[in-house]
Amino acid sequence: MRGLVTLTTDFGTRDPYVGALKGTLLKTVADTHIVDVSHEIPPQDVLSGAYLLRHAAMEFPLDTVHLAVVDPSVGSRRRPLVVDAGGHRWVGPDNGLFSHALSLPYARAFEITHPDLQRQPMSATFHGRDLFAPTAARLAAGFPVEDVGPGVDDAYRLPSMCASVNSDRIEGAIIYVDHFGNAISCITSDDLLSLGSGELRVRCGSTQVCIVSTYADVAASQSAALLGSGDLLEVVVRDGSAAAKLGLKREDAIIVERHP
Amino acid sequence: MRGLVTLTTDFGTRDPYVGALKGTLLKTVADTHIVDVSHEIPPQDVLSGAYLLRHAAMEFPLDTVHLAVVDPSVGSRRRPLVVDAGGHRWVGPDNGLFSHALSLPYARAFEITHPDLQRQPMSATFHGRDLFAPTAARLAAGFPVEDVGPGVDDAYRLPSMCASVNSDRIEGAIIYVDHFGNAISCITSDDLLSLGSGELRVRCGSTQVCIVSTYADVAASQSAALLGSGDLLEVVVRDGSAAAKLGLKREDAIIVERHP
Amino acid sequence: MRGLVTLTTDFGTRDPYVGALKGTLLKTVADTHIVDVSHEIPPQDVLSGAYLLRHAAMEFPLDTVHLAVVDPSVGSRRRPLVVDAGGHRWVGPDNGLFSHALSLPYARAFEITHPDLQRQPMSATFHGRDLFAPTAARLAAGFPVEDVGPGVDDAYRLPSMCASVNSDRIEGAIIYVDHFGNAISCITSDDLLSLGSGELRVRCGSTQVCIVSTYADVAASQSAALLGSGDLLEVVVRDGSAAAKLGLKREDAIIVERHP
Repeated sequence: MRGLVTLTTDFGTRDPYVGALKGTLLKTVADTHIVDVSHEIPPQDVLSGAYLLRHAAMEFPLDTVHLAVVDPSVGSRRRPLVVDAGGHRWVGPDNGLFSHALSLPYARAFEITHPDLQRQPMSATFHGRDLFAPTAARLAAGFPVEDVGPGVDDAYRLPSMCASVNSDRIEGAIIYVDHFGNAISCITSDDLLSLGSGELRVRCGSTQVCIVSTYADVAASQSAALLGSGDLLEVVVRDGSAAAKLGLKREDAIIVERHP
Repeated sequence: MRGLVTLTTDFGTRDPYVGALKGTLLKTVADTHIVDVSHEIPPQDVLSGAYLLRHAAMEFPLDTVHLAVVDPSVGSRRRPLVVDAGGHRWVGPDNGLFSHALSLPYARAFEITHPDLQRQPMSATFHGRDLFAPTAARLAAGFPVEDVGPGVDDAYRLPSMCASVNSDRIEGAIIYVDHFGNAISCITSDDLLSLGSGELRVRCGSTQVCIVSTYADVAASQSAALLGSGDLLEVVVRDGSAAAKLGLKREDAIIVERHP
Repeated sequence: MRGLVTLTTDFGTRDPYVGALKGTLLKTVADTHIVDVSHEIPPQDVLSGAYLLRHAAMEFPLDTVHLAVVDPSVGSRRRPLVVDAGGHRWVGPDNGLFSHALSLPYARAFEITHPDLQRQPMSATFHGRDLFAPTAARLAAGFPVEDVGPGVDDAYRLPSMCASVNSDRIEGAIIYVDHFGNAISCITSDDLLSLGSGELRVRCGSTQVCIVSTYADVAASQSAALLGSGDLLEVVVRDGSAAAKLGLKREDAIIVERHP
């Protein structure tokens, strides 16, 4: 079976950078199976990249390698990272892109230092091509994850990617607005279960909405919250844009409480 | 040979939905050969999706499976469909996306009901991932099309996708305007042949144009009609946009008549 | 090993043309390995296409076939071309797209005339599908490059793609502005070496900048020139757009001289 590598970047598809990345993967290991997830992450928007990986990565089969490059600090001393969790691997900069992977049980992280994984000479601006792509192709072809470099126990996680949960209240944030205008939070079904039974209320900005089971339970033009297909609580407006209608945007606080 | 699955959706490439679709295809059958046709169908624009499939699908080899998701009624009772025709298969919602496939000789349609083809639990909003992708991957890997579910003999076809032809006149519609501004109709070379020999005139809005053989026969800045690369009659302006210059748009009527 | 074909076009991803191209490649040779480089070349912008190929093509493994279609003169008498150089092949129109490939040592060019490489009937407007795709798929599967047609010794090269170098001065042009606003020239590291040692000055429009080694050597908001990841001299502004800040655009002259 060929090694599978997914690509998630902010390179856009106009410039030659995606082509250079793919060429390098195939030059490193000729039968690498490359799958585009997205190259349209807004430039340098690490949180959007982290959200896309959270939603899409675990849909892929075991042993997939997820190469992600949203790297505003390329050239500085941020570490190049491999994360190993849940039977998958993630390769890219240590800047929060892999927040979700790092929260999985038994997640391990490694700094990439092995000299065989670096192009010589390595450019200062294109670590995607010169470091992350060779590492991803090698990992997909069986290079042992423990050999990429020393273990890291303080890999960076974005605070917004994880809700704060206590016995009667969850505090989270909107982490993504999709192209339909749905406002997706970091709150999971497990977070909601921890509140126990009883009716829940969701507050987001000046809006208060109920949690419904499916989109079909929302009346025309009305707003509600529901667990979306990525197992995250999202605020939606039936046949409309929640972001536009309710003025919701990324990083807005969202609170879930038991109804008194 | 690996099973080939093409993708045609309105998901865009910014969000994680395309990645989730591809992951599911590969998780269902690991060596599925995935080819992107387009993810830039305008949101919920079934007619554009139907046109893209009409133009591109039959260029692929026999046994290709075309997975298409433009699905404004997801969550309602529109049927999930497989169409089998001309040695290809199409998988998606029964909303007219497969109008052309359904018009091919010996076309058969089936409603997807087999429990093995459904993710458990199935989300209410993402049948692309939870129902159509598993079905497409299985069909490409050899699952018998007759086993997906009961036959359907009233699958929906978009009226605009098919011209009305009689002995001296063809009535059709503009179904697509491409990014060059060419206005493409539903009228085929077979439709034109049915009018017999003699000069033909094309009327579209307030415009009347002649039919020419090739683009090179059109004088600079002039308009004409010709059979495009997809075997559909299209209205063009030499080195310009027919849509802009002649005010043509989707669903406009187009009439072909023998010159008196 | 499957034959590898990369795609670089100005088709966009909204229309069915990319799908038709991919389908034809796979119908010609079923296990062709297709990799998208870009379909977002600005319409008919041959220089941008030439730049993307220059940057990305040689990152791919030996024996890769690069299919490129930016073809403003389709339907006219421009020749259909195959270029063979550096262990790679390029397939597309003879309009300058392959300027860099043609400048490689031992480059050879051939006009495509072999009848087996043409779809019958061939459309007047879609040589990408009807001529270039079948040729690319066959070459990737082992069709001998010498058999595609007669040798060509005057294939067209874009003047801007090559700097004019003499002992104390290099005259070149900006050939591309990437989505970060970096202004990339046609001047290579070899061109710079030919000036010998000593400090170099770069003039571009009314701007004069120094050459630095890496992006990290540029002070905040300041401009400089450096060799980018594609081995071309580019003008950059730290954390900003050189194109916007310095008013640089494509085809602007750029001069490198030894500091007196």
